[in-house]
This record gives sequence, C-alpha cells and structure tokens, in this order.
Amino acid sequence: MKLLVVGSVAFDAIETPFGKTDKILGGAATYIGLAASVMDVKSGIVSVVGGDFPQTDLDMLSDRGVNIEGIEIVKEGKTFFWSGKYHNDLNTRDTLVTEVNVLENFDPKIPASMQDAEILLLGNLHPGVQLSVLEKMEKKPKLVILDTMNFWMDSALDILMEMVKKTDVITINDEEARQLSGEYSLVKAAKKIHEMGPQFVIIKKGEHGALLFHEGKIFAIPALPLEEVFDPTGAGDTFAGGFASYLAKKGSMTFETMKAALIVGSAMASFTVEKFGTERLQEITADDMDRRIKEFKELTTFEVGV
Amino acid sequence: MKLLVVGSVAFDAIETPFGKTDKILGGAATYIGLAASVMDVKSGIVSVVGGDFPQTDLDMLSDRGVNIEGIEIVKEGKTFFWSGKYHNDLNTRDTLVTEVNVLENFDPKIPASMQDAEILLLGNLHPGVQLSVLEKMEKKPKLVILDTMNFWMDSALDILMEMVKKTDVITINDEEARQLSGEYSLVKAAKKIHEMGPQFVIIKKGEHGALLFHEGKIFAIPALPLEEVFDPTGAGDTFAGGFASYLAKKGSMTFETMKAALIVGSAMASFTVEKFGTERLQEITADDMDRRIKEFKELTTFEVGV
Repeated sequence: MKLLVVGSVAFDAIETPFGKTDKILGGAATYIGLAASVMDVKSGIVSVVGGDFPQTDLDMLSDRGVNIEGIEIVKEGKTFFWSGKYHNDLNTRDTLVTEVNVLENFDPKIPASMQDAEILLLGNLHPGVQLSVLEKMEKKPKLVILDTMNFWMDSALDILMEMVKKTDVITINDEEARQLSGEYSLVKAAKKIHEMGPQFVIIKKGEHGALLFHEGKIFAIPALPLEEVFDPTGAGDTFAGGFASYLAKKGSMTFETMKAALIVGSAMASFTVEKFGTERLQEITADDMDRRIKEFKELTTFEVGV
Repeated sequence: MKLLVVGSVAFDAIETPFGKTDKILGGAATYIGLAASVMDVKSGIVSVVGGDFPQTDLDMLSDRGVNIEGIEIVKEGKTFFWSGKYHNDLNTRDTLVTEVNVLENFDPKIPASMQDAEILLLGNLHPGVQLSVLEKMEKKPKLVILDTMNFWMDSALDILMEMVKKTDVITINDEEARQLSGEYSLVKAAKKIHEMGPQFVIIKKGEHGALLFHEGKIFAIPALPLEEVFDPTGAGDTFAGGFASYLAKKGSMTFETMKAALIVGSAMASFTVEKFGTERLQEITADDMDRRIKEFKELTTFEVGV
C-alpha cells in the first residue's frame, strides 16, 4: 500500500547534555518519510518549505524513494524552524525558538501521483490543515492515522474534535489522552476516545512504552531500555512512521498487524534517539531493524507454567 | 522449596477516593504470606505483633498454610500501625499516622521449623534487622531477595550497603534505583547495583510495569492496564510475594524462571489493588491466577514479520 504523509519539513537546532547542533534537517514528515524508506514502502510527503531549504535534502528524500512532488517550495519564504534545549534527564525540554514561517499559511496540495494512497498519516499540525487534506483526497483512504498534541486541545478543540471524528487510529501521549478524555485511568480514557471516533487508540508513554486499544482489547509494549538517549527529537514521529509503514508494507489493518506495527515503530524510534536529528535514521538498514525487533522479542517473551 | 518471609505484620487504616477503612490487617509479611498461600507454597513469617493483634488474623494465616511460629506476640505492646490517604490519581499518598510500636525493638527469631528455608525474602524493614536475620540462619539460603526503600538510603545507607552486598535479588522502584546508583538511565543504574552485590535487579515502575536485569540481559513487563485501581496498598509486597513464591514452587532460580515469576507477581498484585487491604488477595484462587496470567500473555504477545 502507498502511504501519504502530511506534516512539517523543517529545520531544528538541538541542544542536549551531549552537545548541540546548528540548523539541521527536521520535521515530522521528514522522520516519517525516512521511516517509510527504511521499510521500503512507497510514500509521499505533502508539506511546504522556504527558499532557504537545501535542494540536497530534497534530493536525499527523493533518492530514498520518497515522492516529494507534494512539497511546495515558497521561494520568498523561510522554512519552519524550531530550536530546543533538553534537560539533563532528556525527558523534558525548553523551546528556545519557534519560527512558524511558511507553515503559517500552509495550504496542502496533494499531487495526482499520491491521490491513490491507501493510508493517510496526518502528522502533528493544526487540525484545520489536517482536515483540509482529508477533504482534498478524491477517494477516502482506507486508514486515517492522526498524530496530535495538547497544544491543539488548548487552542483549537472544536476543529480537532471534527478531525478526531474522521480518524481511524489516533496516537497521543498519556497526559494528552487524559486531557482529551477527562479520565485519569488510561483504560477509561481510551474508551472515551473510541466514542469520539477512532477505533484504534495508541497511547505513547515515552520511556515506559506504549498501549494500543481496540474493541476492548489491549496490547502493551515496553520501550527498549537504552543505556543512553542522545537526542529524543523525532522519536514520536519515527514511531508513527514505522507504525504506518509496517501496515502499508503488510497491506493489513487488523489488531494483530497493528500490534506488530507498534513494535516496528518502537524499534525504529530506538535508533532515532541514538544520534542527533535524522542522522541515525538515515544510516539504518533492514538488517539493523531485524536485530532490534529480535531484541524486543527477547525483552518481552516469557513462559509461565503454574 | 520453602520460603521464609521477614517483614511487618500490622494494622493499616486507608483512605482512597472510593472510601475509607478502620484499622484493618496489613503489613508486608502478611501480603507476602498470603501470596505464598495462593501459590500453595510452604512459607513461614518472622515478625512481631502486639497484644492487640487479633488471634483470628493469626488463625487465618495459619489455616492458609503459613507457618506463624516466627510471629512473636508482645502482650504488653501494640502492633505497628500505619494510616494513609491516597490522592485522586492513586499514585501519590500522604501518610497520616505511623506508630512503629513493637517493631521499634524487633529482634527477629527464626523458628527451627523454618531454618531449612531455601528462599529468604526480606521485606522492607531496617537493613540492620534484615542483616541480623541472615546472620541467624544456620545455613545460608539459596536465594536472598531484598525489598527496601529510599527511607533507608537516607537514614541507614552504610548498613543498607552491607545488606545489599549479601543480596541475590533486589527489588526497588525506579526513583530508588536512581538514588542508590546515582545514575538516571535505568540500564546504567542496574549495572551499578549489580556491582554492589545483587546478580538480579528488579526495578518496579508501578503502573508502567517492571524491569529485570541479569548479566547484561533485560526483561520488561508492562503492568496490566486496569480500569480502576481501588486501593494500591500492598501491591509492591504482593508483587514480591508472588515473585518469590513462583521461584519456590518451581525450585528454580534461573533468569527464565524469574521472567515468569515477574509475571506471576504482577498478576497477583493486579488483584490486590481491586479491593481494600488484603481482602481481594484472600479471595482469589489458582483459577483466577491462571486467567490473569493469560491476560498478560495476550497483552504482550506479538508476531512481527518484516
């Protein structure tokens, strides 16, 4: 199946206890596109960048098989830029700079070559923009995956709820699930979110793993315990990208496939955090992924005989 | 194998958002003894209670096959009493009352009938008391399991370190592991704690599950996602009790057996939190345990084919 990705293609400047970067390649759609290319899945990105965005980065994505026809270049504009500094525990960070730039007036355009995508992954953006993409698809995709965050719950709840209603799979973190549902218990939160639309609810818990809820069934995975997290930037996007790419590769959207897809997403995200930005994700091979998925298997497999 | 348990047998008065209790049966050793009886494992408790402790509770433990010869009754003394109030999220609580009472001068005595126990589980107590128990055993047990907490790291670190040195399996929570090791990364923390003595390090993460570390290998389990936690009191003790009892039942102390034991401990703890105090633990059967272990299997099993 073909995967259509909508999200930011951007610049990040990152500081962690281990070092800092200048402006480097970032953005949700970038991580997701790279994840798709690791999985050898056909994908296309719909986004917008400024005249300052390097052609080499666009070529890199294109060379990896990502369709970039949907990345609009606004010559006189500047690319979205985020800069942040992580605290010593790497679980919290301060945003130093957010320059929305060309993303301010982003009017997504879906190229004809991507109109037949079966899976639509809406990366974290204004829910109004996410909704407009869905409306611009000539044929409703088989699966709509939505990534969102508390910022939109605070600032654009009504339109977010409209978007959630049309979503098949929603991925949010535990605090956001609690905020969206008004329930502290994640089991109850997932039930309420099911009622808002999504048949599948994925709750991300960072270093504590993730939960998948569907029709009263639950699947839980731990995160791979890492000796060192070097840079968490893009981990959530990589997770979503790995997840969606596995479904696309398998051409299946069952609960069983989604369980495996959660593992693939987590395995891939565990690479992303090993180096700055997209660096590690650009290096890894299918063999690397195989090995890490085996580690997940070892991490979680047990035999009880009582 | 036979399991020797050292720890408090006590009264608790608990308040949660769902209600409150008068003085009810509590104490680490009580939960652990009950866990052993659910698993049909021979166990004995070494503890001390006051003249106010009901004979009916001692009879209940004895009737369930727990050897109570090691529970000293100080007629003129009062039983340890703890009272606490949980906050709405049930993850945090305020201690309202702690009356140490007869536990203040606890001088553990191991009955002859328990000197041959192969597994020694040292429930959360002053590390000096824990150490004295080990010294009073005529034969070193095959496995020493230590439960401890940050309170002893703050107030009795030197003697705690002596105790840790003689420990095979240590169970602590994530914050305590970080405090004990001075490492934020739990993988690094476990490595440092290995160097202090224990070959097996169990890090409890409450609603996020638990990790087991041994010789560079890691096993991770999620907690069973529950719709409602009614009363978390005793969950950690039940976990330790279920864990140790499974090892005793299997007569095995390998990494593989411990993985299964972690599941058994978690499954049992997930019952404890469903009602106040020991109530639910006193009700459950081997069939209940079987069903919940199957739920864990469903919760964590996946097949990835990339």
